[in-house]
Amino acid sequence: MPRILTIPKLELSSGTVLRDVPVGYERWGELNEARDNVIIVGHSLTSTPNARSWWSDCIGPGKALDTDKFFVICANVIGSPYGTLSPISTNPETGKSYGNTLPQATVRDTVALHKKLLDRLGVRSIAFAIGGSMGGMQALEWAYYGTDYVRGVVPIAVGGRHSSWCIGWSEAQRQAIYADPKWEGGGYAPHNPPRDGLAAARMMAMVSYRSLASFEGRFGRNQNGSNAFEIETWLQHHGDKIVSRFDPACYVYLTYLMDTHDVSQGRGNYEAVLSTIRQPTLAVGVRSDVLYLLEESEELVEYIPHAELAIMEGPHGHDTFLIDQEELNQIVLRWRRREIDPLIDSVAEKRSMLSACG
Amino acid sequence: MPRILTIPKLELSSGTVLRDVPVGYERWGELNEARDNVIIVGHSLTSTPNARSWWSDCIGPGKALDTDKFFVICANVIGSPYGTLSPISTNPETGKSYGNTLPQATVRDTVALHKKLLDRLGVRSIAFAIGGSMGGMQALEWAYYGTDYVRGVVPIAVGGRHSSWCIGWSEAQRQAIYADPKWEGGGYAPHNPPRDGLAAARMMAMVSYRSLASFEGRFGRNQNGSNAFEIETWLQHHGDKIVSRFDPACYVYLTYLMDTHDVSQGRGNYEAVLSTIRQPTLAVGVRSDVLYLLEESEELVEYIPHAELAIMEGPHGHDTFLIDQEELNQIVLRWRRREIDPLIDSVAEKRSMLSACG
Repeated sequence: MPRILTIPKLELSSGTVLRDVPVGYERWGELNEARDNVIIVGHSLTSTPNARSWWSDCIGPGKALDTDKFFVICANVIGSPYGTLSPISTNPETGKSYGNTLPQATVRDTVALHKKLLDRLGVRSIAFAIGGSMGGMQALEWAYYGTDYVRGVVPIAVGGRHSSWCIGWSEAQRQAIYADPKWEGGGYAPHNPPRDGLAAARMMAMVSYRSLASFEGRFGRNQNGSNAFEIETWLQHHGDKIVSRFDPACYVYLTYLMDTHDVSQGRGNYEAVLSTIRQPTLAVGVRSDVLYLLEESEELVEYIPHAELAIMEGPHGHDTFLIDQEELNQIVLRWRRREIDPLIDSVAEKRSMLSACG
Repeated sequence: MPRILTIPKLELSSGTVLRDVPVGYERWGELNEARDNVIIVGHSLTSTPNARSWWSDCIGPGKALDTDKFFVICANVIGSPYGTLSPISTNPETGKSYGNTLPQATVRDTVALHKKLLDRLGVRSIAFAIGGSMGGMQALEWAYYGTDYVRGVVPIAVGGRHSSWCIGWSEAQRQAIYADPKWEGGGYAPHNPPRDGLAAARMMAMVSYRSLASFEGRFGRNQNGSNAFEIETWLQHHGDKIVSRFDPACYVYLTYLMDTHDVSQGRGNYEAVLSTIRQPTLAVGVRSDVLYLLEESEELVEYIPHAELAIMEGPHGHDTFLIDQEELNQIVLRWRRREIDPLIDSVAEKRSMLSACG
């Protein structure tokens, strides 16, 4: 279970003020004396803040997210049911869960909430912000807290704004949930959610997260005992699994949250706004990704001055960043050692010298 | 409205025998004396047999499917609601529509039905079989009637068998329909179909038929008056449109029909079976197609001995073959003049010489 901390007040981009906002998070390693050895991990759409469970090859002693050296934190996004304020939270004014009445937050809002969490945890600055997919959207938003606060940024399998292509996928999935009458305009009873609609949305998503090569390698046209294709059974399994661990209103909320992703919103021209990111940036793209295309990562590198591109060649589409983890670990580790470690170490060294002088 | 002709008997691959099977079709041009100037057009998933309405730049006087020179026929597929036997047809044994009790046919079965239609129309041989997507599956199946009966084959945006990737898309769409309780296991009342589920399935399909570049060029992150993204409104429009012109059980039936597509089924090794296609074959692939990948067209050309590849570079994904029609028309026209016209003309010439001798 995640730890939970309550933030007294958060003003959303929309102007709505939320009070006593719970934030779920998980943490590994220790905050150093300089309070600057922090890695903030953004999770993807249906993931939990238990990042070590889904990124086990990347988080741990000696890994890219080295828990011996860094204080690694993953905080739950607004709208997700794993500890942070979400549609399943109880609205104190009604005594019932919010359902679809929770004011819509943006990616930027959730990063602002997580900033308040880090303040409460005593964090002075972040070594780097990292995440894939929705997590990468958060990583990019962290960059705008400036180079003094965030030393590096690692957006994986994501671009600087949600494309109409991805918004299309979001909307088709929402419509699958709305098509289940148990949705009841978002006001369904907690014990009777639109499970079938959520399962259909998840199956659609699972296809979009993979690729032809991935499915052909694993399933081909293989059939099982009942003459169903194995790919059908696999999808149905994923549909069944999601309904036991996720809430339909949260799913809809988070797809809208992702649709708000646009670093240029309220900041000016898109390309110019990207170019104001001054941190060392590692954009990781997946060549087989059909959802967040490699060209979106290339675009980041084109406009962010101190950015470099790493390409994952695995066949598994968008999910490659969750599947080919050891490859990703090596990519991030090399970059971290070169770009981030000197910054952290030199700062620590300076402080220890100052402290010796004192 | 399509013409309708009734075929007395059709045995499906499953062994089920169907009797008095109606076939809807449309036709343009005239059958020549040799009865060999026939172009058979396969339609795609939700298209009607009125091929000239959706391929107006390809069908007509002087075009690739030249109605002055050829007898062009498009027959409705089994399971589609435009004239041929389908789930909305009345089952004579019950007096009610079949719904989901109609025995499942394959792509091969529907081509066998269309063969009987052509026999009834007096066709001696086919100049070429052409179609995109599900229509291309039919074109490939026609090839197995042999070089004496079919002179050429043009499969567009399709491979020799339905990939697990495409089966995954099929299944996710079916699940969106099943998630609508009005589906009632396929036994819904004709006046109360699962419209919302069908609309959700169609929206999912519409995204898969296009591409990031296509949507970004047209919609980007543009919003309309009510702050919805334009891409959302566009998808909803397509969802609304399908329910007025298509039946959910037909939709489910046809997705299963496409999943049966595998030219090697019952014929042997896949690559070897492809290599037995002896006709001049023009495989047209779309580089931006994320559903039926270009590599599937390339695979056809690799194994079919007398095959050539044409690549459409348009950005519109799978639907490029329905959007960039003039380009497709030129591609097919060039191929037809080179590969097909000499065969037809020389046969006609020989016949007219023989007739002069007689």
